Amino acid sequence: MNYNKNFDSIENEYIFSKIRKQASSFNNPDLHLIDLGVGDVKLPLFKQTITAMKGACDEMQKEQTFKGYPPANGYQFLRDKIAQSYQNLGAKIEPDEIFITDGAKGQLGNIAELFNYGINVLFQSPCYPAGAESNVLRDNNVDFLVTHEQDGFIPYPPIGKRYDLIYLCSPCNPTGAVMNRTDLTIWVQYALKSGAVIVFDGAYSEFISGDYPKSIYEINGATDCAIEIQSFSKSLGFTGIRCGYTVIPKRLGELNALFFHWLGRRFNGVSYVSQRGAETFFDKDVKSQLEKRIKFYKTNTEVLKIALKNLNLWYNSSVCSPYVFAKTPNGENSNVFCRKLIENLGIVSTPGSGFLHGGEGYFRLSAFCHREDALQASDRLKNLAQYY
Amino acid sequence: MNYNKNFDSIENEYIFSKIRKQASSFNNPDLHLIDLGVGDVKLPLFKQTITAMKGACDEMQKEQTFKGYPPANGYQFLRDKIAQSYQNLGAKIEPDEIFITDGAKGQLGNIAELFNYGINVLFQSPCYPAGAESNVLRDNNVDFLVTHEQDGFIPYPPIGKRYDLIYLCSPCNPTGAVMNRTDLTIWVQYALKSGAVIVFDGAYSEFISGDYPKSIYEINGATDCAIEIQSFSKSLGFTGIRCGYTVIPKRLGELNALFFHWLGRRFNGVSYVSQRGAETFFDKDVKSQLEKRIKFYKTNTEVLKIALKNLNLWYNSSVCSPYVFAKTPNGENSNVFCRKLIENLGIVSTPGSGFLHGGEGYFRLSAFCHREDALQASDRLKNLAQYY
Repeated sequence: MNYNKNFDSIENEYIFSKIRKQASSFNNPDLHLIDLGVGDVKLPLFKQTITAMKGACDEMQKEQTFKGYPPANGYQFLRDKIAQSYQNLGAKIEPDEIFITDGAKGQLGNIAELFNYGINVLFQSPCYPAGAESNVLRDNNVDFLVTHEQDGFIPYPPIGKRYDLIYLCSPCNPTGAVMNRTDLTIWVQYALKSGAVIVFDGAYSEFISGDYPKSIYEINGATDCAIEIQSFSKSLGFTGIRCGYTVIPKRLGELNALFFHWLGRRFNGVSYVSQRGAETFFDKDVKSQLEKRIKFYKTNTEVLKIALKNLNLWYNSSVCSPYVFAKTPNGENSNVFCRKLIENLGIVSTPGSGFLHGGEGYFRLSAFCHREDALQASDRLKNLAQYY
Repeated sequence: MNYNKNFDSIENEYIFSKIRKQASSFNNPDLHLIDLGVGDVKLPLFKQTITAMKGACDEMQKEQTFKGYPPANGYQFLRDKIAQSYQNLGAKIEPDEIFITDGAKGQLGNIAELFNYGINVLFQSPCYPAGAESNVLRDNNVDFLVTHEQDGFIPYPPIGKRYDLIYLCSPCNPTGAVMNRTDLTIWVQYALKSGAVIVFDGAYSEFISGDYPKSIYEINGATDCAIEIQSFSKSLGFTGIRCGYTVIPKRLGELNALFFHWLGRRFNGVSYVSQRGAETFFDKDVKSQLEKRIKFYKTNTEVLKIALKNLNLWYNSSVCSPYVFAKTPNGENSNVFCRKLIENLGIVSTPGSGFLHGGEGYFRLSAFCHREDALQASDRLKNLAQYY
């Protein structure tokens, strides 16, 4: 069978599917499992969102309001609101530069399909692995720009080799590193000068507090060199509903049109029900509930960090992230450590090695959990010392 | 910009996006537009389906029943029911051979990503163009097995060249040709002998009446050589809800596992709301309403066919299809004809050339319409003669 040989170059199983399996095979009747592994939201959808989705269902039951195929690039009502939100940030993004998607993950790979095989691609790393692995599957030359603890895991442009695509993520999953205006300006200028296209993963932008850019388009020149990938998953809690968006400015040349053509062949749009739900993201009442929700998850990170502090383990200081990224005790292998954590303390976490280069020696705890889970995990972590 | 050069080898704009634009730019206050272009359902969802979807929304609002990421391959409850439906047809398909998808179109291209670039791919043609164009974008060698009116548009295996992937569609969009047990057995034997994988597009299987196989897995040996792509779009009316499934039997070797790995990197599952809606497909009451619905659309084809008969135009005799596939008058170019049809009679149709090789000289009318539209189109077609 002439199967894609590049599968041999990536991990046999996707990291989060492995972690889910690990969690579901955990069987200790005396120890309730605390899942801080996959970054999956645990709190329910807002009332306004549900009302909108049920309203959309009702429309689908009536002949006069029934909707067939959605536009491949998404409904105008949603793209208009997203464009407005960019304009509120001072970024000039038009509705026809926005593509509604079924989430961010697939997009990391879809964008690469607009380019020839074998292009040079650079990933800030440690990173969410799906994009890099998708590029490996596409036969691209994937390099990793390893970021370091001493730089706060902030990536700086490389010297020498030219890249076609550069993937950046801020706030970064898993490190929590968030780039400020200067950091992003350096990247935009580098991309403009070298002719690279930046793929900016902003899936965690709602977790930003302080004067950090929420969008790369807040930076001058970014509409000439950057694609932005966004999602309602971690904000509205849409991991189970599936809706996000990708921005490809027309100033990027043919890419906007090519993506439209690509979508025509590979995608039939996002469920009307999901899009009506996503629209409530821009509802004033939802916004204020959302802020509380984000604060809630962030408080979980603080709870977990206190536990790590008491253990004298290094952890990221970011206050713009739903993840705690921390060092394993005595530089232990991250897989070994995470296995210990699940077997002895019943806590699921993600080994740093799952986030590719530069991740070994670290582990990630997701704060997308109920408060009692954060508290109980924190309590159990007190017993970690006995295993070292 | 190092963009995918294969975009230069496909039509600049996807056929159905072009047709939609054409329809929306139509502006004749005296002539109500009748849309028989894109094969998009027009009748609303069934009450049971809406109830299930709204119930799923309610679950998403409660902490105890909230659902995050769906399994990448779909919820067990849906895969179990689909597996059972195969078993009812006498086909041995297990739940872990089924992958829930957001519809059929994307899958036609996704499957190709499991193989190396430059493989030999064969398409029965005229055909739904998305799969072939996705394979061109992937740099594969795409050949077309042109089917002919005198053979009832049934495809027969080629002689000589070996193919890695062979795309078949039955009932065929656009021709309506439906393969019987003997036809499919010939293909399965050919695939087994030559080592090809068949990608069987069964999106219109619910339109089958009579003793034709609804699934390729009704044929001995098919689980060793065939992938089946299915959709709830044209049956449940899910074009706006997005849910389908793909079957990759484990007997096909690594492909089942590779697809799971591919999904891990490129897909985050289908909305829980859509999957709960799709589950009602297997509800007894829904089944009987569905049969009526299918009959309703089929009656539309009969209405349209009578109009073509009166014009002495050839049309397909299939009673297993929601499409009328017909010859243009005097062998007129299909684009020219379809433009005349919209400008003079206000009827949107699809030119045969949009269905790639072998489609020129034909046009397609979709019967996914309200009865009054079928009747009025039929009435207007009486005036066609004056333009010839």
